[in-house]
Amino acid sequence: MTQSENPGALHAAPPPPHVRDASGHLDTDFVTRVEEALDTRDAAVVRELAGNLHEADMGDLLEMLREDDRVLLIQLLGEEFDFAALTETEEPVRAQVLDALPDGDVVEGIGELESDDAVYLLEDMEQEEQEKILAQLPNVDQVQIKRALEFPEDSAGRIVQTDFIAVPPFWTVGQVIDHLRSSKDLPDSFYELYVVDPGFRLLGAVALDRLLRTKRSRKISKIMEETRHSVLVTDDQEDVARLFERYNLVSVAVTDTSERLVGIVTVDDIVDVIQEEAEEDMLAMAGVGDEEISDSVLEIARSRISWLSVNVFTAIFAAFVISIFSATIEQMVALAVLMPIVASMGGNSGTQTMAVTVRAIATQELNRRNILRVLRRELLVGIINGVGLGVLIGAIAGGWFLNPELGVVIGSAVLINSICAGLFGLLVPMGLEKIGVDPAIASSVFVTTITDVVGFFTFLFLAAWWFGLPF
Amino acid sequence: MTQSENPGALHAAPPPPHVRDASGHLDTDFVTRVEEALDTRDAAVVRELAGNLHEADMGDLLEMLREDDRVLLIQLLGEEFDFAALTETEEPVRAQVLDALPDGDVVEGIGELESDDAVYLLEDMEQEEQEKILAQLPNVDQVQIKRALEFPEDSAGRIVQTDFIAVPPFWTVGQVIDHLRSSKDLPDSFYELYVVDPGFRLLGAVALDRLLRTKRSRKISKIMEETRHSVLVTDDQEDVARLFERYNLVSVAVTDTSERLVGIVTVDDIVDVIQEEAEEDMLAMAGVGDEEISDSVLEIARSRISWLSVNVFTAIFAAFVISIFSATIEQMVALAVLMPIVASMGGNSGTQTMAVTVRAIATQELNRRNILRVLRRELLVGIINGVGLGVLIGAIAGGWFLNPELGVVIGSAVLINSICAGLFGLLVPMGLEKIGVDPAIASSVFVTTITDVVGFFTFLFLAAWWFGLPF
Repeated sequence: MTQSENPGALHAAPPPPHVRDASGHLDTDFVTRVEEALDTRDAAVVRELAGNLHEADMGDLLEMLREDDRVLLIQLLGEEFDFAALTETEEPVRAQVLDALPDGDVVEGIGELESDDAVYLLEDMEQEEQEKILAQLPNVDQVQIKRALEFPEDSAGRIVQTDFIAVPPFWTVGQVIDHLRSSKDLPDSFYELYVVDPGFRLLGAVALDRLLRTKRSRKISKIMEETRHSVLVTDDQEDVARLFERYNLVSVAVTDTSERLVGIVTVDDIVDVIQEEAEEDMLAMAGVGDEEISDSVLEIARSRISWLSVNVFTAIFAAFVISIFSATIEQMVALAVLMPIVASMGGNSGTQTMAVTVRAIATQELNRRNILRVLRRELLVGIINGVGLGVLIGAIAGGWFLNPELGVVIGSAVLINSICAGLFGLLVPMGLEKIGVDPAIASSVFVTTITDVVGFFTFLFLAAWWFGLPF
Repeated sequence: MTQSENPGALHAAPPPPHVRDASGHLDTDFVTRVEEALDTRDAAVVRELAGNLHEADMGDLLEMLREDDRVLLIQLLGEEFDFAALTETEEPVRAQVLDALPDGDVVEGIGELESDDAVYLLEDMEQEEQEKILAQLPNVDQVQIKRALEFPEDSAGRIVQTDFIAVPPFWTVGQVIDHLRSSKDLPDSFYELYVVDPGFRLLGAVALDRLLRTKRSRKISKIMEETRHSVLVTDDQEDVARLFERYNLVSVAVTDTSERLVGIVTVDDIVDVIQEEAEEDMLAMAGVGDEEISDSVLEIARSRISWLSVNVFTAIFAAFVISIFSATIEQMVALAVLMPIVASMGGNSGTQTMAVTVRAIATQELNRRNILRVLRRELLVGIINGVGLGVLIGAIAGGWFLNPELGVVIGSAVLINSICAGLFGLLVPMGLEKIGVDPAIASSVFVTTITDVVGFFTFLFLAAWWFGLPF
């Protein structure tokens, strides 16, 4: 591959201007034209339209086509189709295409990918299929990919890129530049060089701008940074992401436990990790698991019902608390009308505190040194807002039922529930984190159950006591 | 500044190993030692401990210190304190420090920052203070910063870095390298060079790895990429982030409306944009605005109560729907016990669909081409899960009150509410997006109000009708 043909994956030629509309979506006219060309199996037009697409645009295009058109497009494009585009589609689209294509095409396509992309395509395949593809890959790729697949799913080892440039410390800047100019087998793009000893142990790194600023005669050992951030293959991807964020990194060296350099992780993969992490937290808090917009109805129904089933039992528990006060409600049906207000206000306050806490835990802003201050703050916020809302709701309820005492009762219940909401909105996620459960997933069910139960109980109990009703 | 003193902001020397503990938090022992040194005003020890900290570590350290210790630390460090650390703290800490430091120190510190960092520190200051600081900065900085501050708050212009390297297209690779080796006034770190005409119009860009692979005699115009992604100063930061994600960029040129190059945006700032964006969506869905863990009690109470106040009125609306059926409940108090179950199940289903939809809108995965498919899917999921949960809840309720007919009624209400939840969980955020309201902020209140009202009404109405009760 000559240089002019290969400007580098991270700097690939941009898409033709008509590919996306102003809002950033793939242009509908463009997709229609591709579809028409596919209908008539016009390979020349297909290549002209889609032959030069960036992998991200190709990925979006595949998602928008019908299933059989996807395979047709890839086959008509032939060698011009870059399998990296499949790393940019959602999982079901990727699975469908890899399933439908002949094995030979898949082996060839995966063989041309960088190691992290190859791992990405292979890791979701079924065991048998994966082994069949792997067995047909060149030996060196096979070994690298198999090793990466052995690392835990969210470890740095899974997104490691094994294409990188390593040089010995005794080379001069001039030697390195000459090597880069003459070598044919360089990574598509790179931002730094790594310095290793003969045993391939990581000694340091040199950023390219540093290399360019330095005189040819200077030794690499003089300009390398010795103690750079490096990560272990087994490190969690989210921890690696924290490192990139904190120190504004663009790439980082990945070593094995004996300090040997095995590859690098680049910021483009980290951007995906950060994106997915925040998304997971948000969906988890809403009781949604790992779900894609393209998943099937049954997959989605199954994944969502697990959370809803938990909720059946917490809702019945809350109903049981109400049933204790059946006799009370029979005497004063206004209580049944008003009680959801108390529970709902508490649920909303609790969700607010919980969301802030889950996020602060994820970004490590909450720690032992500030926990007491935050707890005090949540209690105060609970009291202030509880008083404000209690007075408002009490006034409305008292006026509505022409019963000021009922206003006092509901106002007090709102205040008490608001304080509980602040307290448990903070303590539940922190407690779950402490015992090793993801607070984003489990907090919501506990917090809303607590605010429902406390809300119903406080309001009905206070009313029964104040008005001397039976229960 | 010589090269050996300045390895570049993106490649700064790593922190001493003892600064952070295994979980990534700042080490408590380290903080205590800094505090002790500050107590005794021992400048030598303070410098030894904190003089060489990365700006991110320094930012965290400042957050953990008492207010007066922060100022003391900065003054004892003197020239060794890099004001960039203040871009890494939360807003209230930054405001407190900038307020407490003498103006002269602030002017000097800001004067040494890159333009995007300087803007970051100045943009939150009060008008008067901002103008006072600006007036004391060197003229060229003043003009650049003032221009950046005129751009809308979330535009690319606010995070633009005006330190970059521009070369004419007729230079050779050799000339460029010689220029980089001899020039004293280079950015701290950079990943590509920009090619401009004499009027500073952007012609293209050259990645550093490309430059290093190319022979000295080759002209820049031959290796530059002409039609690179570039953004306008006025473009929204989130759109710029989409571009970085989609095409795996590390930096991008920013032009004004007449295509003149005004600066660059780098991926480290984009990582922050992506992080903040996902966080905002998650917090907004939980009814929390722009809130930091370090905000004061009153600020937090005020920002949270606005959402809760809206909820007061939606909760009262739901209570009003219940009050229509007061006579029904009086006859059959089991309805009061069971009705929160129907509302709660609907609320949870609706929140699930809504969270997926809000996220799909944010990541542009939902569009005109797949909306009908997604709508059909949500309806089917609503029916499937509604039937499953309806049967489960109906069986439990029927058994509990020894009334199978009551089980049929509540099961039917759960099914109907589940379908509504899927429908409105999708349509509400899409409709809000259509009329230009952020769906993350406003969806939740609409969706849960709808599922509450539909849940209470369907259940109580079906029960009144089935059992022939008055209402």
